[in-house]
Amino acid sequence: MSYRAPLAEYQFLFDHVVGFDAVTAHPRFEDAGADMTAAILGEAAHLCEEKIAPLNRAGDLTPASLENGVVRTSPGFAEGYKAIAEGGWVGMSASPEHGGMGLPMTMTTAVNEMMSGACLSLQLAPLMSQGQIEALEHHASDAIKELYLPKLISGEWTGTMNLTEPQAGSDVGALTSKAEPNGDGTYSVSGQKIYITWGDHDVADNICHLVLARLPDGAAGTKGISLFLVPKFIPNEQGKIGVGNTLKVVSLEHKLGLHGSPTAVMQYEGAKGWLVGEAGGGMRAMFTMMNNARLGVGGQGIGIAEAAMQQAMTYASERKQGRSLSEVGRGTIIDHADVRRMLSVMKADVFAARSIALMCAVAIDLQKATAEDAWGARAAFLTPIAKAFGTETGMRVAEMGVQVHGGMGFIEETGAAQFYRDVRVTAIYEGTNGIQGMDLVARKLMDGGEAAFALLDEIAEFTESAREACPTLGSPLWEAVEALREATEWMLEQSELNARFAGAHAYLTAFARVIGGYAHLKAASAEKGIGPRTKLANIYMSRLLPEHISLLAEAQVGDKDLYALSVDELAGL
Amino acid sequence: MSYRAPLAEYQFLFDHVVGFDAVTAHPRFEDAGADMTAAILGEAAHLCEEKIAPLNRAGDLTPASLENGVVRTSPGFAEGYKAIAEGGWVGMSASPEHGGMGLPMTMTTAVNEMMSGACLSLQLAPLMSQGQIEALEHHASDAIKELYLPKLISGEWTGTMNLTEPQAGSDVGALTSKAEPNGDGTYSVSGQKIYITWGDHDVADNICHLVLARLPDGAAGTKGISLFLVPKFIPNEQGKIGVGNTLKVVSLEHKLGLHGSPTAVMQYEGAKGWLVGEAGGGMRAMFTMMNNARLGVGGQGIGIAEAAMQQAMTYASERKQGRSLSEVGRGTIIDHADVRRMLSVMKADVFAARSIALMCAVAIDLQKATAEDAWGARAAFLTPIAKAFGTETGMRVAEMGVQVHGGMGFIEETGAAQFYRDVRVTAIYEGTNGIQGMDLVARKLMDGGEAAFALLDEIAEFTESAREACPTLGSPLWEAVEALREATEWMLEQSELNARFAGAHAYLTAFARVIGGYAHLKAASAEKGIGPRTKLANIYMSRLLPEHISLLAEAQVGDKDLYALSVDELAGL
Repeated sequence: MSYRAPLAEYQFLFDHVVGFDAVTAHPRFEDAGADMTAAILGEAAHLCEEKIAPLNRAGDLTPASLENGVVRTSPGFAEGYKAIAEGGWVGMSASPEHGGMGLPMTMTTAVNEMMSGACLSLQLAPLMSQGQIEALEHHASDAIKELYLPKLISGEWTGTMNLTEPQAGSDVGALTSKAEPNGDGTYSVSGQKIYITWGDHDVADNICHLVLARLPDGAAGTKGISLFLVPKFIPNEQGKIGVGNTLKVVSLEHKLGLHGSPTAVMQYEGAKGWLVGEAGGGMRAMFTMMNNARLGVGGQGIGIAEAAMQQAMTYASERKQGRSLSEVGRGTIIDHADVRRMLSVMKADVFAARSIALMCAVAIDLQKATAEDAWGARAAFLTPIAKAFGTETGMRVAEMGVQVHGGMGFIEETGAAQFYRDVRVTAIYEGTNGIQGMDLVARKLMDGGEAAFALLDEIAEFTESAREACPTLGSPLWEAVEALREATEWMLEQSELNARFAGAHAYLTAFARVIGGYAHLKAASAEKGIGPRTKLANIYMSRLLPEHISLLAEAQVGDKDLYALSVDELAGL
Repeated sequence: MSYRAPLAEYQFLFDHVVGFDAVTAHPRFEDAGADMTAAILGEAAHLCEEKIAPLNRAGDLTPASLENGVVRTSPGFAEGYKAIAEGGWVGMSASPEHGGMGLPMTMTTAVNEMMSGACLSLQLAPLMSQGQIEALEHHASDAIKELYLPKLISGEWTGTMNLTEPQAGSDVGALTSKAEPNGDGTYSVSGQKIYITWGDHDVADNICHLVLARLPDGAAGTKGISLFLVPKFIPNEQGKIGVGNTLKVVSLEHKLGLHGSPTAVMQYEGAKGWLVGEAGGGMRAMFTMMNNARLGVGGQGIGIAEAAMQQAMTYASERKQGRSLSEVGRGTIIDHADVRRMLSVMKADVFAARSIALMCAVAIDLQKATAEDAWGARAAFLTPIAKAFGTETGMRVAEMGVQVHGGMGFIEETGAAQFYRDVRVTAIYEGTNGIQGMDLVARKLMDGGEAAFALLDEIAEFTESAREACPTLGSPLWEAVEALREATEWMLEQSELNARFAGAHAYLTAFARVIGGYAHLKAASAEKGIGPRTKLANIYMSRLLPEHISLLAEAQVGDKDLYALSVDELAGL
């Protein structure tokens, strides 16, 4: 079993599906021409296949461990991380001003997905740093930028996000960590933070914690929260690290998966910190990094899905078992209808989820390049879909990957089970998928549906034009778009947000199904005659797109049925 | 966290949904009157809650291990097993002639489900014995019955099933194990068998292996396979165990879950065995035990689902986080629409899956009691549905159980992750769910659809009668029944079995959705006015039943789309 980066697939998506040419046509990204893009992705692929993928199982078998207050990472992880840092991959989309490559987020999305497929536990380290770089670029003072960004971008130091406390998870506003001004422009940060990914480790020289805490006069709720940069070792102005800060790792979590990623409980005891952004602006600053992180987490799901699918495909191509009734035959289980169905559906869904993530990234790039609000709105609308659908595709494909392996899938040595375990948390962290659904039907429809309808119009228009040439693909998609438009109108008519929330998960998934159909139709249209893309699109349209019917029925039920059954009644049944 | 056996739910299902009164009305089962049933299930509940459930985590943390060729089970498992054996639970449906209780399979199904919810790793031991008892009752010689059945029924000895070999999994006919006649009526059995559940252990005095092997003149394929009883220690005629047989445990598997259940690679080296049933009749005999085992595995999925749901319900009732927009409120996450949706859907699905399993068990009992073919056909038809839908409900509910816990769900100490790991194999063993789908659309429709249509007619008739009183529940179910009838006719029209196979999984799931709706409608009809059952049925009808639409679309696609995309094209995309 070995991971192969899907380079040709990215190239195809860039060229024919997600509109990457609009990104590179802009002066800001003109360096990312076709040759350069191919060369860069090729480099990343080489890194992932040769250096990162071989670490995946070691991370699982030898988890990160806490020894005398210091975290020791899994065997090979330090070298793997150094290879990522030295290749410049941490800062590939960061501003060139501080040493970044300034490449489009679309390319970073592809590279991050590859790294996730190779070794998700390790990929979390650069992903966390990328989020921090983004937050500092937008919100930090020039002094902080000058001092920290070069180190984070080069990967000499890493970054973490510290939001969650035991009583404050999805409800960040309930946090109680405090920051007291020291009078010299710095702050003393105190409190306990949990689920801190790569909270401590031995792969880089310093660890920069972005910590949400409340100033003494900070209001209750989210408005009183500010963001602080709290380094593990306090650097001097030249960036040379000095004394240790008053913070420590209390413990590491024992998790279902991602054993190679140290998840720490962190204790801050009057640790020295610097305010990032305005006082009380912590949530806004955090959301800057969270939006990209959400897209990144969607990509993690897709990366695991790709890896699990590759492994299942290899196994099914080699495993001889039974005789298939199909006429074509290799004499392995890939001939069996149900196995072929699973593999085809896995492939079609990975394609759909990857297209959505890359469309979201393209919108981010175009917003940056053009400063047009419409692209920002598109990116904002697609982010929760990319996150939830990407991670659920990861879960579903990893589950099918186990199933394709039969009994072998349940044996840990095979590796299929690790994908199933590792991917599970992606539907939870960076905002549970429930939160993503709420975000989509509340905040992302606050524009009166403008972003949603703009996307639906775009799909409808393309479908209309492709429909005559290819009615078997275009017609079901056309109907799905119209059904989704009606459901969107239904959502907008609900003045009670809770009625939307009760169907939010179904609505989000149905939207993903339709965008996935759009991507498949685009792929098929790019092909002359009936080639593999058209055939895969056909499988998607007849086996996966129809899910939107059931989903949209549920999306529009409202919340009355749920609350009619009281908690006591529900518990008593 | 503590497992509570759902006693009131079984009672309600027995009284109002699955027609258990028809079973107890028959002289064969007249002992199982209402009082006796309640008392027996109450005893089982006590055992599961007090003695078995506390072992579940120990089994996970301290897996069974192989030491010097002998398997040492997890802490407390020996005592737990003894409590099961001494309570008579192994042989509760076994014939009283050899010490069994002769109770209906319906009751055994409920008890086995409880044990699965309490500790699935341990429950596998008695489940394997029950399958062996069933096989010996039907196929063994009187001498074997006299010698082995009392020991197996009392639980002094345990039983295993040895089908799989490295190259022969779903395709049992590919096995190469050999049995040579010794000339004295016994046989020398040789070969390697894998995935042998409870293949060795230290909780009982002897282990009786039922081994599929080929006689020297045995034909190729399944027809040449015979079944042999191969005890670990060879007993004398009085049942006193003597010398060890020439068999050994080669290794134990390192599995995703069920760590407390020793899964062995067994090596038979001319081990002494006795033919069970006729030469060449091995598969037939094996299917006797496999059918009940399949229902039992469906029940395992339901048991885990129940336990995972209880845990999620408790957590959601206690965890404070955020403010819900619902008017009713406890101030915990159970008020949030998406959490409430997940819990309601979990409850509605557990109800549906449990109803299907118990309907299958009732049919088995009525077939035994009446010897009517129609009940046998009903049981045979429901078995693959009970197995696949029960186990997929287990996976889905355990997955949602993790999700309800948020970040805590990914932490092993919580226990939600263990359910997610443990349940995964149930969709694979005892015939993968893919095999269940093929069984349903091929073998189980060989009667021209008689069993399927009889069930659909029954549901249609009941729905018709309930429809006027309750149109919001009855109408969607009525439409679903008709759609399923059409899909069944479509299946029967496909002379190419592979066209059926390509939609088999979807068809099976849609059938389960409709039977689940039937069960919910029955439950609602048993209630005066609009009570909790009606409200839960309403949630099922609007949020889960609609899935049949998408599923039946996929069921009738045929196999052309799958094979149009060649393996090379699929792999090359």
